[in-house]
Amino acid sequence: MSILVVGSVAFDTIESPAGRAERCLGGAATHFALAASFFTPVRVIAVVGEDFTPENEAVLTRRGIDTRGIDHAAGKSFFWSGSYEGNLNEAQTRATELNVFSSFSPRIPAEYMDSEYLFLANIDPVLQAEVRGKMPDVRMVCGDTMNYWINGHAENLARVLSELDVLLINDTEARLLGNDDNIVRAAHNVLAQGPKTLVIKHGEYGATAFFSKQSFPEEHQQHIAVPFRAPALPLANVVDPTGAGDSFAGGFYGYIASQPRLTPEVFKRALFYGGVMGSFAVERFGTERLAQLDPREIEERFAIFRQISHLD
Amino acid sequence: MSILVVGSVAFDTIESPAGRAERCLGGAATHFALAASFFTPVRVIAVVGEDFTPENEAVLTRRGIDTRGIDHAAGKSFFWSGSYEGNLNEAQTRATELNVFSSFSPRIPAEYMDSEYLFLANIDPVLQAEVRGKMPDVRMVCGDTMNYWINGHAENLARVLSELDVLLINDTEARLLGNDDNIVRAAHNVLAQGPKTLVIKHGEYGATAFFSKQSFPEEHQQHIAVPFRAPALPLANVVDPTGAGDSFAGGFYGYIASQPRLTPEVFKRALFYGGVMGSFAVERFGTERLAQLDPREIEERFAIFRQISHLD
Repeated sequence: MSILVVGSVAFDTIESPAGRAERCLGGAATHFALAASFFTPVRVIAVVGEDFTPENEAVLTRRGIDTRGIDHAAGKSFFWSGSYEGNLNEAQTRATELNVFSSFSPRIPAEYMDSEYLFLANIDPVLQAEVRGKMPDVRMVCGDTMNYWINGHAENLARVLSELDVLLINDTEARLLGNDDNIVRAAHNVLAQGPKTLVIKHGEYGATAFFSKQSFPEEHQQHIAVPFRAPALPLANVVDPTGAGDSFAGGFYGYIASQPRLTPEVFKRALFYGGVMGSFAVERFGTERLAQLDPREIEERFAIFRQISHLD
Repeated sequence: MSILVVGSVAFDTIESPAGRAERCLGGAATHFALAASFFTPVRVIAVVGEDFTPENEAVLTRRGIDTRGIDHAAGKSFFWSGSYEGNLNEAQTRATELNVFSSFSPRIPAEYMDSEYLFLANIDPVLQAEVRGKMPDVRMVCGDTMNYWINGHAENLARVLSELDVLLINDTEARLLGNDDNIVRAAHNVLAQGPKTLVIKHGEYGATAFFSKQSFPEEHQQHIAVPFRAPALPLANVVDPTGAGDSFAGGFYGYIASQPRLTPEVFKRALFYGGVMGSFAVERFGTERLAQLDPREIEERFAIFRQISHLD
């Protein structure tokens, strides 16, 4: 079933211990869409500038991604520049140029209206709510956010959170949004703000899902008492962590959308697929690894994720 | 089979967001021995001062721990004082008084000489090597160390590492000892220094074991290619992280010593038991939780560790 993602399509200039990449294709919607496209049809809503070439678009369309919702505006595309040092856990931002993104007004093509799964990538919660409001009949809504919106746009964000099935954020964001240094208490506080389920991404340590009574239908309530933790793969060569979290979200949500029903078993496997896609994403700069990925590699790596974490 | 542990028995004054505990029983050997005692007989080599009371010793002997190797010296016991803030991942040390520990010369009672498993807790590598040298026939040797010895006593530490079956250290120590910010490359470099297997403790994120060709007998070589990661339990109330790593080591090594052979399956379960004992240790100040633990709680929590991490 189709996932509709709204978010940024951008160019990134990235420096890491592995080297430097100039203006490679990036943006949350891009990474998410590529990762999810291995599991289910994906449709993108975004805006790009005149610097976005047919070759850039082909990176998406070659993976079967529907780009009819990407508006082409006068001016330049969203641009981000950053660098990673040491253990590559955190980027130092050098430049952020919103460009055409500063006046982004999401337009939903008629052909997208039957999308059953909606992903609200990390953008202004006002835009997230706007798209959510235009898609009242979707089966499931997942979303991401960041410190900037948590700190300065709490009221707008609260409206989005109140309608989310799954919120995917990282440790720092969870502690900030949940207003507690303890991650379990923070998770509890975040769930009280609306999301039925919270997935906290731990970077190189994997991810943990915290459940509520609303996470699953009644027959699965025995699964909500204990959180679930999916591993990450220890990698000897991390080239570029940019987009790893969005690739995680794409693998996670793509797998869910490919399954007939959301059971605890599906949810747990989805977290593993999230880790798998995130682990590929960081092996090359930008979208390079996911754009070239052979689907068979996904199942091979899923088997490694099982081996790394399972007793028998 | 018996484990012999050499290390510190101390008093700790600890402040955390949960409160303050004055001069509670602590020390690496104490936490290790208590955790291991739920799996196998344990013998302790250490030195204490005149402030170490029969009541303190009873905390160990009530768990069946053999304390005949604890020397009583004139003066005060090793004392440490520290505080935890925020997410409790790192202690701020306020005071370290070596006291009787500064002239510690390990004495191995004749009754201890048939110990088959040796644990070298975090002390001067010169002392670790001395004890190792006096126990040439042990079946297995595990050890711990810290930044202080890695930075300033590299040559002495190298001798210890060259003879270790398993080294248990944390992320920071692994990056320092392996001289690489990437944890996989660092692990590879550490293994090249001698330990057959390296266990890296990630605090609230669990632990990862990295294997070498020497980790297991030849028939198990297919298990060494992929590391193994054991989860930690997300806890809403972490009272005192002091000794969590030593309790992890105790659960890990205690389980191994309780099994007839060291297979990959035993090693993986041992990592889970390490996490289980670490998760108990932090729930109260000092040794309080482990000293009062009901053995049935261990199996209950082991089941939760499985549930938290296993797909089926």
